[in-house]
Parts: sequence; C-alpha cells; structure tokens
Amino acid sequence: MSSEAFKQEPTLTSMFQAIDRIDTQFPHGYNDLKAVVIGGGTGAPVSIRTLLSMGIQTSAVVAMADDGGSTGILRAEAKVTPPGDIRKCLAAFAENPDDPFTKAFKYRFEFARNHTLGNLMLSALEEATGSFPEAVKICGKLLGSKGRVYPSTLNNVVLNARTLDGRTLHGQATACKSETALDTVWLESAGQPMPYVEAIRAIYDADFIVLGPGSLFTSIIPNLLVPGIPEAIERSKAKTIFVCSLADQQGETWGLSAIEHVDALRRHGIGRNLDYVLIHSAEKIAPRPPLQDSFEAIAGSGALASAHQENREGKPLSANIRSVEVTYEDIQKIQQDGTVVLVRNMVDPQRPTWHYPPALARAFADVFRLNTPSSGA
Amino acid sequence: MSSEAFKQEPTLTSMFQAIDRIDTQFPHGYNDLKAVVIGGGTGAPVSIRTLLSMGIQTSAVVAMADDGGSTGILRAEAKVTPPGDIRKCLAAFAENPDDPFTKAFKYRFEFARNHTLGNLMLSALEEATGSFPEAVKICGKLLGSKGRVYPSTLNNVVLNARTLDGRTLHGQATACKSETALDTVWLESAGQPMPYVEAIRAIYDADFIVLGPGSLFTSIIPNLLVPGIPEAIERSKAKTIFVCSLADQQGETWGLSAIEHVDALRRHGIGRNLDYVLIHSAEKIAPRPPLQDSFEAIAGSGALASAHQENREGKPLSANIRSVEVTYEDIQKIQQDGTVVLVRNMVDPQRPTWHYPPALARAFADVFRLNTPSSGA
Repeated sequence: MSSEAFKQEPTLTSMFQAIDRIDTQFPHGYNDLKAVVIGGGTGAPVSIRTLLSMGIQTSAVVAMADDGGSTGILRAEAKVTPPGDIRKCLAAFAENPDDPFTKAFKYRFEFARNHTLGNLMLSALEEATGSFPEAVKICGKLLGSKGRVYPSTLNNVVLNARTLDGRTLHGQATACKSETALDTVWLESAGQPMPYVEAIRAIYDADFIVLGPGSLFTSIIPNLLVPGIPEAIERSKAKTIFVCSLADQQGETWGLSAIEHVDALRRHGIGRNLDYVLIHSAEKIAPRPPLQDSFEAIAGSGALASAHQENREGKPLSANIRSVEVTYEDIQKIQQDGTVVLVRNMVDPQRPTWHYPPALARAFADVFRLNTPSSGA
Repeated sequence: MSSEAFKQEPTLTSMFQAIDRIDTQFPHGYNDLKAVVIGGGTGAPVSIRTLLSMGIQTSAVVAMADDGGSTGILRAEAKVTPPGDIRKCLAAFAENPDDPFTKAFKYRFEFARNHTLGNLMLSALEEATGSFPEAVKICGKLLGSKGRVYPSTLNNVVLNARTLDGRTLHGQATACKSETALDTVWLESAGQPMPYVEAIRAIYDADFIVLGPGSLFTSIIPNLLVPGIPEAIERSKAKTIFVCSLADQQGETWGLSAIEHVDALRRHGIGRNLDYVLIHSAEKIAPRPPLQDSFEAIAGSGALASAHQENREGKPLSANIRSVEVTYEDIQKIQQDGTVVLVRNMVDPQRPTWHYPPALARAFADVFRLNTPSSGA
C-alpha cells in the first residue's frame, strides 16, 4: 500500500482537527437554533463544523458553478451535476471525521485523474438514481450526516466574471484564479436557472443565515445569482451573518477591503438585509487620530493602502498573503444601514488565511446573544 | 448526464436478472446448510447468487492474483490488495441488486481509467483502515451483504503459467488471455503466501465447498495454490462440488475436456476429495456403440475431437466458442475415485458460455438430496 497514491483533502482534515478541539464549551440552549450556511466547498465547511460543534441545527446551500479539477472532468465528460463543493460540505456534516468511510470519502486518487472517491460516488449515485439530490441524500446517510446539504440549483450553470480592470473571465475555475480582483460575476445557463426547492425551504426555516467564509465571488455570490435565492433571504425571518474573509490567498478579491466585500454582496443581490458582519482584525480598531496619519505612513501601514490601490490599476497578485483591510470609518459606513459589525481576532494561528473555528464559534455566540432578548447584551 | 460514461458490469447485471427470476421455488430446509464458494470474480458470483436464492448460508473465498484492468492499475500504482474479484463477489452478495448504492458500486468510469467505484472504495477503505479485510467488511455492510467474502491470501501474489506447448506466461491477465491451453500454474511472491485465517475457517465450517464455475487456471486454482487451502479442504467435513465450465471463451482451457478440467484440479492440489462434479451436456451421455463411430466422423462430431487435438499442438484459439467435451468413458473414469458426476443441461439459452442459474440450482438441489440420508435418493 502506497500512501502517496491517496491524498486526503488537506484543508478539510486539519480543519476538522481544529474544530474537534472546541468540544462543547458553549452553554446549552443553542439546540433550538437553526442555521443555514450559504457558500461553496472551501469556506462553508468551517462554518458548518463550527455551528455543529455549538449544537446548532445546521444545513447548507451550496454553489453549483464549480468547473475545475475532478468536478470539471465529471461535468465535461460524464455530464453530471458538479459534485465537488457538495462533497466537501457533506464531509463537514459527517458524524465522525475518523470513521473509515468518512476518511475514504475524502480520498483523492492521483492515479485516477485526481478524482476523489466522494465525487465519483455522488456521480455514480446520480446515474443510479437519476437524481442528484437523491445521490446527496444517500451519501449523507452513509456519512451519518448531522445536517442536510442542498445545491442552490440543479441547472447547468457557468460562472462568468468581469475584473476590475475590465477583462471578462469564463468559468469558475478561471475566475477564482484571476490575478486581479473581480468586480461583477453572473451565471450563464441554457435557460433561467431555477432554485432548488429544498434550498429555499432551508432558508425560510432558518433562524440564522450564515454567508461564508469563503471565496466571495466564486463560492458565496454564485448562490445569490440563482433567481429566488436572494428573495428567499429577503423574506426569511432569519438574521443574516456575513463572515468576511480575513485574508486573500486568491486573486479574485485581491486588495478588496472589508467594506468592499460587503458592497460586492449588496451589488449582487443580498440587499441591505445583512444583519451582522463578522470581520477579523488582529488589533483593536479605533478612530484614527489625525496626527497619527503621517506617523503610519512612515511606519509602513501605507504599504497596505498601496496594495489596495494596486488592484484598481489591474496590477497582478503578488506572492504575499494580505489581510483584508478594515478601518473604523468603514465599520461606521457598513453600520449606517442597520448592519451590526463585530470585529474579532479570528485567525487560525497556523494558517493565516483561515478562520480559527473556536474563535469563530465565540463570534457566533456573541451574535446569538445579541439576538436573545432575555440576555439583553 | 451521459449514461455512456458509466458502465455497469454487463455480465453481473444480466446474471442478477436471471437469478432473481428463480425466486424461492425450492422447498425450505436448505437454510441450515452452509456453503463456501471458492473461485474468482466472474464465475463465483453465479454460484453465490444461485446458492443464496436457495436459502443457503453462503460465503466465498476469492483468488487474489488478479493483475489486469483497474485492479492492475491499483496494484501497480497504489500498491493495494487486488480488489476486483472481491468486488464482484461482494456485489453478488448484495441484498438488493436494484439498490442505488449496489448499482453505483458496480459502475465503471470510462473517464477515470476504467476504474469501478467498488474497486476505488475497497482501495480507499483499505488505506483508511489499514486493513483490506476491514475494507471488505465495510463494503459488505454498505451493500447489505447476505454473506461474507474472504480473500484466500493477503500476500502480494503473482500468477505464473506454463502452456501445454511449453511457454511460460507471467501474470494472471496474461495467462487468462493465453491463446493455447495452460498446463500448470503457480504463485510467485516475496515469501511463502499465508492463507487468510477467516477463509480457512469458512472452509472448515462449510457443509459444501463449491469450486467454480469460472476460469479454471486463473480463478479457481489460484486459491488452491495458497498453502493451507487445499489442506483445509481435505480436512473439512464438507462435501466438495466442482462446477465444470460448460464452454470456453478464453484460451486458457482451449480444447480441454471435462476430465482434463478435473485432472488439472487434482494436479494442483485438490487431491481426490472431489465429491461431486457437475458437468453440462445439452444431450444425454450414453456409451458409444462401436458402429456409430464412423457415422459421427462423417456427420461432423469429429470436428470437436480435432479442436481438442489442436491445443496439444499449440494451435491458437479460433474465434468459435466450443463446448467442453464430455464422454461416457470419461465420466466412468472420473467416478473411479468415488467422485459422483452429475450431467445436466445447464447452459444459459442467451449466453452459451454461462451457466443458467435456475438449472444450476436444480443441479445443486440434486447434490443436496444425495447427501440427505432421509431422502434416500
């Protein structure tokens, strides 16, 4: 047996470990809460596992525009519904991450065109049942899933993007590898895509809708581009929580500040019903005294500002990972529409582009407290 | 969705249909019987499903020398235990052949180097658990398996063969594509291969050991080449039943008569403890009156004899499918050692190289009756 031939999803595996350390440090009382996570395959699992660790009834609505890697091959050659993002979210709902079937579900076969077992299972079950949601349901059952995963649409959709410097990119795999920040994304499909009805129901049933974390334009927003999804968010009784990226490792949001993340969501249909925005900051955000400006320019925080300028000019992604910028003034602006901004240090000390689940859990807990009239926070 | 991209094992699928038509036409009373089928991935499932349809407690001991196709890639590139034959037998034990997971388990992905989902699952689970038998157990559970499947050995073995015309062939995939009949096969491995202990136990526990049907030298005999397996068969209280091939579609037994099949088994360690041999014949076998000889030579049955001669001379396989020859005189010879030969018409009307499960079931029933003292058949 050659372990080299089998690769676990590295992010999912270490993420699980971080989350499983949380245990149940939270007071009981969240069990009645229902949350639905809206996102894609990379960031959504962080919210899913975090919410599950807090005892919250969780489901997920997942973007269906992925066309890269194993999923891309499956879409192109087997004409199936894209399984990749669904697979990653399903794995996050698994009862026991150490269960052999759950581990195997996440294996990637380098000797078989880099497919994962989970992708192949979803596609084979889609063929066997004639229904992608049925395939998802069966895999969920085999994983002892603690919640349901719903595709946002079953239509065959392709994501297109326009960059800030005016180029058009075709396909999600291309868009998420953009070297300059994106401005707008839209779906292309044979007809008008229809929302998957169970996804709509999950949004209506939720007490909290959690957007992200994850790639803004290629994981979160593609869900909002399915007609019916933003309307359901608008009409749902749920409070919305946007978990803003804390750093950029892809080019698609290169140089965008936190308020620009929020603006992009609003521009793509989320309207003004963002109730909470969770923003990472390693330091306390305070109003900037006028005197300090010149000091900071000398001390180097101007480098950040110049990075944010770069993307405007279509300059390509540098190799550095940059934090998403947030200022006191921007927080004030985001809150003008009634949105509450919570700034927390939420970075994973080991992985500077990832949320640290225990910290994210504390931030969620703060939101839930703010929503419980009796606690009067 | 493109159904072209997903292929079911064609033989397994239609085989299931034939067997599922049997239903339970047999009187109850077989439920106390235990059978173990010894073979490979193509023929053994026919016996497995037939025995299950009769209500018999069935398990299987499966050859581990396969090195072709998807299994060959997995052995060579991922260094796993060969899953192919085990997968086919597991599928034969599945509770419900129409269950979506069972269907998916058998899918073959043309877009992923022709791997089957079942093979990839077994290999990923072997990696996840660190144990091939554990992987087999988990898949059996997921399939609602009606019986256990055991590898005959866990050692990494390679099958070598010598043909009747004196050539040496390396590997099972090569041997089973031989264009001339084989004479001898043997296993090559780093050390002495050890029998898998549960396989030995199943052989001891059985009331009936069913060898075949299936490829004689590449599916049945490789099990007997594992030291300890023939000894277990010898010492088991079980009666042995050899289901002789009824026709040849591969070259490895090209031109071999039924008695030559039996001789090959004896030559490879099965000893004289063959209790029953089931031989197919479409016509009644009677002693040949001396006068008829010259008539038959004119009428054409001599063509068969000349085919049997061909393999002796190392002539290659012709495109025709030939029945395995059986004569009255050979039956007498096989029975000299106490073996009972049952000759039945057992061919599948649609597929001239396959046993028809309902006919095989009736033949098994005859054997079981012969073994029940009270019925006094």
